[in-house]
Amino acid sequence: MGGEGEPAAGDEAPSLARGVAAGERRALARAITLIESTRPEHRRAAEALLRELLPRTGRSRRVAITGVPGVGKSTFIETFGLYVIERGHRVAVLAVDPSSPLGGGSILGDKTRMERLATRPEAFIRPSPSGGTLGGVAQRTREALLACEAAGFDLVLVETVGVGQSEAAAAELVDMFVLLLAPGGGDMLQGLKRGIIEHADLVVVTKADGDLKQAAERALLDYANALRLLRPRTGAWTPKAVACSARDGTGIAEVWAAIGECFERLERAGEIEARRAEQARASLWTQVGETLIEELRRHPGVTDLAAALEDSVARGRIAPAEAARSILDAYNKR
Amino acid sequence: MGGEGEPAAGDEAPSLARGVAAGERRALARAITLIESTRPEHRRAAEALLRELLPRTGRSRRVAITGVPGVGKSTFIETFGLYVIERGHRVAVLAVDPSSPLGGGSILGDKTRMERLATRPEAFIRPSPSGGTLGGVAQRTREALLACEAAGFDLVLVETVGVGQSEAAAAELVDMFVLLLAPGGGDMLQGLKRGIIEHADLVVVTKADGDLKQAAERALLDYANALRLLRPRTGAWTPKAVACSARDGTGIAEVWAAIGECFERLERAGEIEARRAEQARASLWTQVGETLIEELRRHPGVTDLAAALEDSVARGRIAPAEAARSILDAYNKR
Repeated sequence: MGGEGEPAAGDEAPSLARGVAAGERRALARAITLIESTRPEHRRAAEALLRELLPRTGRSRRVAITGVPGVGKSTFIETFGLYVIERGHRVAVLAVDPSSPLGGGSILGDKTRMERLATRPEAFIRPSPSGGTLGGVAQRTREALLACEAAGFDLVLVETVGVGQSEAAAAELVDMFVLLLAPGGGDMLQGLKRGIIEHADLVVVTKADGDLKQAAERALLDYANALRLLRPRTGAWTPKAVACSARDGTGIAEVWAAIGECFERLERAGEIEARRAEQARASLWTQVGETLIEELRRHPGVTDLAAALEDSVARGRIAPAEAARSILDAYNKR
Repeated sequence: MGGEGEPAAGDEAPSLARGVAAGERRALARAITLIESTRPEHRRAAEALLRELLPRTGRSRRVAITGVPGVGKSTFIETFGLYVIERGHRVAVLAVDPSSPLGGGSILGDKTRMERLATRPEAFIRPSPSGGTLGGVAQRTREALLACEAAGFDLVLVETVGVGQSEAAAAELVDMFVLLLAPGGGDMLQGLKRGIIEHADLVVVTKADGDLKQAAERALLDYANALRLLRPRTGAWTPKAVACSARDGTGIAEVWAAIGECFERLERAGEIEARRAEQARASLWTQVGETLIEELRRHPGVTDLAAALEDSVARGRIAPAEAARSILDAYNKR
């Protein structure tokens, strides 16, 4: 009962796991809805589900697609996704959008922006979960990614809006960063100033067609030069730049080849495995820390005291360290 | 007994507070040593000390001086500090260095690099605390800054190495960011790629003398143009660029004037007050969170379990959420 948007009941977890493992899209959609639910009984069921799915995870390439609004992310993802599907792969598109918890809804990963890709059985598109902290959104997206892997998607694209926060969130999830930049210096600065290029394993210059073709070629040279000046984040892979057109398909094959080459190098150096282990460890401690703070803030003996102390601290009447100790003392006496 | 480096005994706090309030440099140095101590009885004494000092704090301009190694930070701070002292101010120089906890020592804020400034009674220079987490270093530097204010220093410069982490730490401490950039495009990229320019309220091109004078003028134009393309972080102040020479003093007066203008604008808009309130609040919750995690990790019933679960999570055998719940369950049953 219920469409893709309705959470499954807790005891559905085993059958849901079977559906996901069989690659059923509807089961996958329901599984992710369960994962995203904040209701405690749903969290328990989601954990049971993930326990079943875990042995089937880890076999995809996890790639962040990042770039400022207007750079052509969804157009690129659609063309690129269709290209990859033609080569026998299955593509899931997720999104991490730090603005959605505040803005009350996300446009990222919107299926209407990727109509041709969305209708393909080899593709699965899911918008960013709305609500909760960015940390929470990242954790849930991490679990959604695992569910997609268990469902047999061997390429998971995580779309981000290309600002500092969402980069940091995506860095906890993916193996490789692809940065989209439009032709033009202002955009270069945009990309650079936001510190994104530091993460980029591959820079893709978009819109290399029509009137912008020449500008894109120039930008490609500029970006390639810029990349040479930056220290690569790993010795195993030197970031590249490629120009492409989502409209006429130019360069799409090069992008796919560069991604393949990057994964091969990182895998050979053991960096994929090491990075994933570190991400999982960080995710564990983030969740422990967030739950501890939540429990503390919800505790009846603490809530009022914390509000009063927070106010005094903000007014400079109490030092933060002393207020922190008072809150912790009250909490530990519970 | 003991030089500046030896922590004061706990019951010294009141006399230490009197000494700091009287502007005694030796008392200030001992107060900061007490603040930086990790011994529990010293933490209590430091809190008592800060309680006494708090009413005397908040009256300085808190300015981050940031830039990559080699840009000339200490040379600039020395010339600039001496200039400001001549105008009747008292200058404290602190440092936040994320590498020092790992590297086992800091070169930042090293007095030997600022010999002329270090000998002036109107100046106080203190290296970055070593040991502890970056979060901890930032918290202790925050308290050292308050002690400097209580001792009558009305300009506090917080030196950072200009990488993402130390920027983030400094952002919790200061009102304004000054970014030093050397003449030359590589450095521009350095500054940009690290996302620092996003924080910059003032860009200072260093080494505008001798052979580099012309390059500095060109760089000044480039940076001024770049700043115009970026959205300012506040409507109250549009970031500026100034070229200066720490060797011949060119531009130092303009830097001081720009800092004064920036503070005037931010103060009139109420942003200094609002930012400091937010920083204090964030500091409170950071300290609560860090202490909670520390207590949990130290708990006998948790330590071994956490190590085993962390390992299983890293190997992909348990999902982080489930491991987090197991750790929290064990901790809550204590």
